Amino acid sequence: MKETIGFVGLGGMGSAMAANLLRAGYPLRVWNRTPERAAPLIAEGARPAATPADAAATGGIVLTMVSDDQALEGVTRGPQGVLAGLGRGGVHLSMSTVSPALARRLAEEHRRHGAAYLAAPVFGKPEVAAARKLWILVAGDKQARERARPVLEALGQAVYDFGDDAGSANVVKLCGNFLIGAAVEAMAEAFTLAQKHGVPRQQVQDFFSRTLFDCFVYRGYGELVALEKYEPVGAKPSLIRKDYGLVLEAANETLTPMPLAQLIHERLTSTVAKGRDDRDWSGFAREVSEAAGL
Amino acid sequence: MKETIGFVGLGGMGSAMAANLLRAGYPLRVWNRTPERAAPLIAEGARPAATPADAAATGGIVLTMVSDDQALEGVTRGPQGVLAGLGRGGVHLSMSTVSPALARRLAEEHRRHGAAYLAAPVFGKPEVAAARKLWILVAGDKQARERARPVLEALGQAVYDFGDDAGSANVVKLCGNFLIGAAVEAMAEAFTLAQKHGVPRQQVQDFFSRTLFDCFVYRGYGELVALEKYEPVGAKPSLIRKDYGLVLEAANETLTPMPLAQLIHERLTSTVAKGRDDRDWSGFAREVSEAAGL
Amino acid sequence: MKETIGFVGLGGMGSAMAANLLRAGYPLRVWNRTPERAAPLIAEGARPAATPADAAATGGIVLTMVSDDQALEGVTRGPQGVLAGLGRGGVHLSMSTVSPALARRLAEEHRRHGAAYLAAPVFGKPEVAAARKLWILVAGDKQARERARPVLEALGQAVYDFGDDAGSANVVKLCGNFLIGAAVEAMAEAFTLAQKHGVPRQQVQDFFSRTLFDCFVYRGYGELVALEKYEPVGAKPSLIRKDYGLVLEAANETLTPMPLAQLIHERLTSTVAKGRDDRDWSGFAREVSEAAGL
Amino acid sequence: MKETIGFVGLGGMGSAMAANLLRAGYPLRVWNRTPERAAPLIAEGARPAATPADAAATGGIVLTMVSDDQALEGVTRGPQGVLAGLGRGGVHLSMSTVSPALARRLAEEHRRHGAAYLAAPVFGKPEVAAARKLWILVAGDKQARERARPVLEALGQAVYDFGDDAGSANVVKLCGNFLIGAAVEAMAEAFTLAQKHGVPRQQVQDFFSRTLFDCFVYRGYGELVALEKYEPVGAKPSLIRKDYGLVLEAANETLTPMPLAQLIHERLTSTVAKGRDDRDWSGFAREVSEAAGL
Repeated sequence: MKETIGFVGLGGMGSAMAANLLRAGYPLRVWNRTPERAAPLIAEGARPAATPADAAATGGIVLTMVSDDQALEGVTRGPQGVLAGLGRGGVHLSMSTVSPALARRLAEEHRRHGAAYLAAPVFGKPEVAAARKLWILVAGDKQARERARPVLEALGQAVYDFGDDAGSANVVKLCGNFLIGAAVEAMAEAFTLAQKHGVPRQQVQDFFSRTLFDCFVYRGYGELVALEKYEPVGAKPSLIRKDYGLVLEAANETLTPMPLAQLIHERLTSTVAKGRDDRDWSGFAREVSEAAGL
Repeated sequence: MKETIGFVGLGGMGSAMAANLLRAGYPLRVWNRTPERAAPLIAEGARPAATPADAAATGGIVLTMVSDDQALEGVTRGPQGVLAGLGRGGVHLSMSTVSPALARRLAEEHRRHGAAYLAAPVFGKPEVAAARKLWILVAGDKQARERARPVLEALGQAVYDFGDDAGSANVVKLCGNFLIGAAVEAMAEAFTLAQKHGVPRQQVQDFFSRTLFDCFVYRGYGELVALEKYEPVGAKPSLIRKDYGLVLEAANETLTPMPLAQLIHERLTSTVAKGRDDRDWSGFAREVSEAAGL
Repeated sequence: MKETIGFVGLGGMGSAMAANLLRAGYPLRVWNRTPERAAPLIAEGARPAATPADAAATGGIVLTMVSDDQALEGVTRGPQGVLAGLGRGGVHLSMSTVSPALARRLAEEHRRHGAAYLAAPVFGKPEVAAARKLWILVAGDKQARERARPVLEALGQAVYDFGDDAGSANVVKLCGNFLIGAAVEAMAEAFTLAQKHGVPRQQVQDFFSRTLFDCFVYRGYGELVALEKYEPVGAKPSLIRKDYGLVLEAANETLTPMPLAQLIHERLTSTVAKGRDDRDWSGFAREVSEAAGL
Repeated sequence: MKETIGFVGLGGMGSAMAANLLRAGYPLRVWNRTPERAAPLIAEGARPAATPADAAATGGIVLTMVSDDQALEGVTRGPQGVLAGLGRGGVHLSMSTVSPALARRLAEEHRRHGAAYLAAPVFGKPEVAAARKLWILVAGDKQARERARPVLEALGQAVYDFGDDAGSANVVKLCGNFLIGAAVEAMAEAFTLAQKHGVPRQQVQDFFSRTLFDCFVYRGYGELVALEKYEPVGAKPSLIRKDYGLVLEAANETLTPMPLAQLIHERLTSTVAKGRDDRDWSGFAREVSEAAGL
């Protein structure tokens, strides 16, 4: 029988992932800040935990999926935190999008307690998670990575290894969110130029996503930008603006100028400042149209 | 037997395309500013023309592939120009990367002379042209487009139709060059950030070009940017800087702010100003590394 | 008695300047594209000219003050143009804001005809011109500069000499329009930040224009930006956008990246695209407020 | 006899200011992290304090002048901090360049302890401080401002009042550092454009600093940028980069896009990344020249 896994953080992503672990035969102990969200999983056989620490078994594996640095610190540290529950030999599989700096600090703290902290951020929306199609990155202690691999494989379509420094996986995750935003900005400028010259936006998107840019981002986000229909909401502008804050922070720490990342951060700031936080974050493309008087 | 086609402009792209027409069974009359470049085609059966007008048969098809707006105007207008040779019923298949504004003016001039001007810009380097793998756009007079289609199909892997306004195809071509540069800038910033955080550039490129960005541009240009090896030279920075000048001009005419296009134009300007015109244009990515002190 | 001067271009600036020449005792021959604008000057003693050439006396001095490169070329070249009228020994005092490239071409053309072309652009609005408070730059042929100096001194508070290359004065004029726009952008960002933190815009402007930035631009334009009242209209956004086009063209020719000039050009483009061309050009500062959701 | 004042932070600025207070007849109790720096003041009659708390008399006035947020928190909080020493009725005159957010938090903490926190940042280099020519801003509790006014007047040429919110003065100080950097960037771009067109940088700077921009910043910083001689060092790039970090943080908190502030932050980042931290911070203007291939 498979070992019991602790699961902390049952938002849209976490719930879908936890359900897949249950289906893969892992007994779960689950915890969420608002306990009601645990009900569907408990109905499927998961047991509730009283605290994050309680979700962790000594020497076991705990997976966390929460919204930001602060939330991760909250469920990790202190007497009720994951780290207190894990003890020696435990593995914390941290799948949230957080700063590389926090990942590195937590890795060090876990090491001092004889536990291991793995960064394992993912690409994919909740539907993608539910379909077990996530792309998963992993980095941190080597032995822990080997032990965690079957768990990660139960969650996504592929697992990519980024070595011993836990921060590495988070850096690459931030790079990905940046690259997606860059593609959105580029398409928004290109489609707007075409539109102003009488060429329909969708015709342009259709051409490029079949030829030079025949890939997931230019097809999926490209369609939203072409149609200027920023629904359904994969992630809100204010949420991804937080991620761009992490990108710029990671750039600042290492003296890396990123003018394109700054431009997108600025677009997201305007989007939120104008009260347009109810659409998908790719809706910052509207700023491009608006600046052109459309 | 197929009709004779005039071919004007035998640079790297033009020569490869002309050779494919010969192989497809089209008799050719060829002209180039420096006549020596015609020799290999003449050896394969093409006949030399004394002037661009001479390459054109009355009512026939002439294809032009030259370096910029000025060169296109040079081979098109005047008593020795293509338009004088074509006369009524002729079709000018203009495959160069030029401004939408020039395309529209030339379309009007051809119309007044009873001829048709088709814009048919392409995506692909000389090797791609040689392998008949070009992506070809076409726009302009409807009847002429129908007549020209078999010729275009002999030159590339697919032909995409952008309607009656010749300028449309050029706008989309410019959008493409812009989107490629945007992807290069985005990757350069992302890979530099990763590098500064200890993650190898190639590992990042490898991950994204297998997952979110599994397409031609992120694989091909991505490899150049990851390795920081900007060879072989597909197109020089000064040449593509000219194209970005056309992008910004097309944006100016239509009151379309394009800050990302401006950023890349600025990068290309620095690249040329620093005397780095001997590498592929994607080498502007070095500006990103350099600004980060690498 | 003073020598007769030809005066071509009687817009707001030109009319005020011509009136000052009359008052200084210079007989004038005046020409304007729409002749009615000459009436007030004729009432004060100026004689009307039938063409720009007619305004010029052989070997005399003609002053031109028109709206852009194209207009200057129009009144200068051809059988009815200023240059035809001036002949050998004549001096063309060109006071419009035009491109350095045109100035250099016209200087060469005048030289070939035995005449001299002086670039003498000015800083100041029509009221400033009327009050003889213009700052005047001059560059071009040395002897011609000496001959023209008393005329220039009758028009402004001070004349600054920029040497033999006519283009130099135009470059400096463009630098000035750029520096003003840069100050407007800087104040707009600073005042908006202050406003968002609860500090009144005017209090900030008042402080800086009494201390670190105690000068004309930060006081005058500063007040417009602080009050967000972009009236009266000194120059429309579309007019100054044309000047920024010249700045970027001059930068392009010499491979000079100017990201701040691009930013302001972009702001002006948005202002015009949104149909806000009825306020002073410094009204592009509204784009800053708007991007902040105000 | 005047009341004794505590003085914490004896760097270049603090030492010059403290000496002026002694000369104005204020007995001083001084403290510095490295005690040797206090020696010259003690030689002039100041008494040494063992801790920041010890420099403060209950109900007295303490002035702090330290390098950043962290240093200010260090000397303010805890049993040895200024706040512990001041007690009820005391006034903390905080003259460092720190974030508005910290000023607001500290104001609240002081209020809870019955003391008052005044933000009183200054403009001017150490020589300016020594000459009592500082421009001083002040904001915070009204009564405390009245009490502190004579002390501030002993330190500078003028005191500007920004009301009850301590954060306001810091916001305006940050605006000032931003406006100076914006002027440096603008001049760097303008002078480089002129230079590329054959017009000497100094001639351009001389013209503008006598006419449109006849003020302190365009004269002083303008000369450095014109001569490209970034000495003496008023403040290092890394120090002012920290201030731009505060500007962007203040902008982020309030959803205020500041693209020009981002551009300058990026320039400063490059300057530090390239190891050029040994010149005055205005030396970021070299990035402009370098991007132009000079």
